[in-house]
Amino acid sequence: MTAVREIRLKSRPSGLPTADNFELATVDLAAPGQGEVQVKNLWMTVDPYMRGRMNDAKSYVPPFQLGKALEGGAVGEVTASGDAGFRPGDLVQSNFGWREGFTAPAAQVQKLDTKGLPPQAFLGAAGMPGLTAYAGLLRVAALKDGDVVFVSGGAGAVGSMVVQIAKAKGHTVIASAGGAEKVAFLKSIGADHVIDYKAEKDLTAALMRAAPDGIDVYFDNVGGEHLEAALTAARPFGRFAMCGAISMYNATEPPPGPRNLFLVVGKQLKLEGFIVSTHWDMLADFHRDLAGWVKDGKVTWKETVFEGIEKAPDAFRGLFSGENLGKMLVKLG
Amino acid sequence: MTAVREIRLKSRPSGLPTADNFELATVDLAAPGQGEVQVKNLWMTVDPYMRGRMNDAKSYVPPFQLGKALEGGAVGEVTASGDAGFRPGDLVQSNFGWREGFTAPAAQVQKLDTKGLPPQAFLGAAGMPGLTAYAGLLRVAALKDGDVVFVSGGAGAVGSMVVQIAKAKGHTVIASAGGAEKVAFLKSIGADHVIDYKAEKDLTAALMRAAPDGIDVYFDNVGGEHLEAALTAARPFGRFAMCGAISMYNATEPPPGPRNLFLVVGKQLKLEGFIVSTHWDMLADFHRDLAGWVKDGKVTWKETVFEGIEKAPDAFRGLFSGENLGKMLVKLG
Repeated sequence: MTAVREIRLKSRPSGLPTADNFELATVDLAAPGQGEVQVKNLWMTVDPYMRGRMNDAKSYVPPFQLGKALEGGAVGEVTASGDAGFRPGDLVQSNFGWREGFTAPAAQVQKLDTKGLPPQAFLGAAGMPGLTAYAGLLRVAALKDGDVVFVSGGAGAVGSMVVQIAKAKGHTVIASAGGAEKVAFLKSIGADHVIDYKAEKDLTAALMRAAPDGIDVYFDNVGGEHLEAALTAARPFGRFAMCGAISMYNATEPPPGPRNLFLVVGKQLKLEGFIVSTHWDMLADFHRDLAGWVKDGKVTWKETVFEGIEKAPDAFRGLFSGENLGKMLVKLG
Repeated sequence: MTAVREIRLKSRPSGLPTADNFELATVDLAAPGQGEVQVKNLWMTVDPYMRGRMNDAKSYVPPFQLGKALEGGAVGEVTASGDAGFRPGDLVQSNFGWREGFTAPAAQVQKLDTKGLPPQAFLGAAGMPGLTAYAGLLRVAALKDGDVVFVSGGAGAVGSMVVQIAKAKGHTVIASAGGAEKVAFLKSIGADHVIDYKAEKDLTAALMRAAPDGIDVYFDNVGGEHLEAALTAARPFGRFAMCGAISMYNATEPPPGPRNLFLVVGKQLKLEGFIVSTHWDMLADFHRDLAGWVKDGKVTWKETVFEGIEKAPDAFRGLFSGENLGKMLVKLG
């Protein structure tokens, strides 16, 4: 038996999660039975979408259960195996994050071929956030030559990939983020115009200055005022990939929607929501393109790392105060 | 010289237009010169989109000019011709509505082959409103077998065509309208469920009762609370054809957007605005399908008729108080 620590949902947050909503517990892992593996996690991810699962509400993923360990992406190493397909030392990906280790059926983990990348990249740039950027731009927004692209939350795990993929494809890119450090990061990865939304009184005016002829594609990670600005700045037949709205995730009652949504009619705009899991079929194409871009120095990434399972709630909460530059990760091993 | 009356924009409305925003004037028509025609209008149309042109704001059509005759669809008869292609008695369509007659270059009128339909049908069911319904359902919302369709403003010129086209194609259709007369009309043209929005306190609850398994397509003529209800009732991958938002056209300051717009992400909804002029290429297909539906008794229409050019402002204002059942028209000849 092996003792590991895990983070459980103690109570459902109302608004911004607090430390009290989480609890650290220790459990003993059973040795793996026939067809099972035991895994020691090396890295886990925290992502904004997890906030939705903390509510007791129907959504596209079921809510987390009170008193149970949270779940999410993790990369780990097999420590013991009862399955012929896995050996100790194998790197694996799973959805058993928020814990130092686990024993589970082998079918619930995937062997990870890092192709020379650091394993935690598969929780970020080469993983779900990267594919989100790729599918949102290329399929949902149907990016085409000459499009001017605006992305909110540009310094985050998804946003920074949106910036770099659009730049790699030759587009003019406007990105928003909060604070000088993120602005500098966005410039360093090639954004043509960066809007520091914390320093702007009027986001719409700032966007119109950055894109005087308007935008064709908006990749929305933020919602709220950013979406309103994008609607105003959109050119006819603009396409919006609606990925998330971090500005709203902690609202205890839903804030009003954009006052200028009526612009979708006259400008013939298309707003399309999407979830990355619908677009897994693009993963091989994405990994092929990503390998080329990394090799050519066109795509890079940043990580913000918290160390130790006990810090996972702080890492998660930090997403909503914008503490992360690039991918927010928790190092476990 | 022929004296005709016309309606001019006297002042720009703030909020709901009043009688004072319009003025009746008499002008003398010059005889048609070389390449010109003189036309006596028989019918003119009033449509909600004209409200936007009364503001001094950039939109997809330029604003109306103060002190000038308004414009819009009309059907008339050639009374004198200086062009070899037209003879007195020819029926023509033009954009020279809001006046009893006009003299204009022949290139600015189109000869009308009524194919046995009453000429004013080409201002309604067989014209712009009908094509709006057809293109919005078939191309923008990409209607497919089994879709449950919800349309707001179902008793209007566009809405009643949406109901009937969707029914002709075998769909379950939910329509909203205000008042018993419109509800009865919608049932008479085949709507499966009709919501009297004036009688419902909670439109979302009413829609969920009408469509307990949700809706796949929403054709939005109204905006506001109707859009909010449709977002809540939408099934995954629902498609919204955003045609207009009559509930908002007279707002002096833009009302908040839907509080549940964030649902587009999790449900992977697509909201797409459109303007009928983008879809003129579908006109021949539409007229072919319409002829079949009319022959089979699957499509019919209602008209609400005001008589005389001096009543055109009342007819127009009546659109916003819901006075029309089906197409609102002004009979001039």
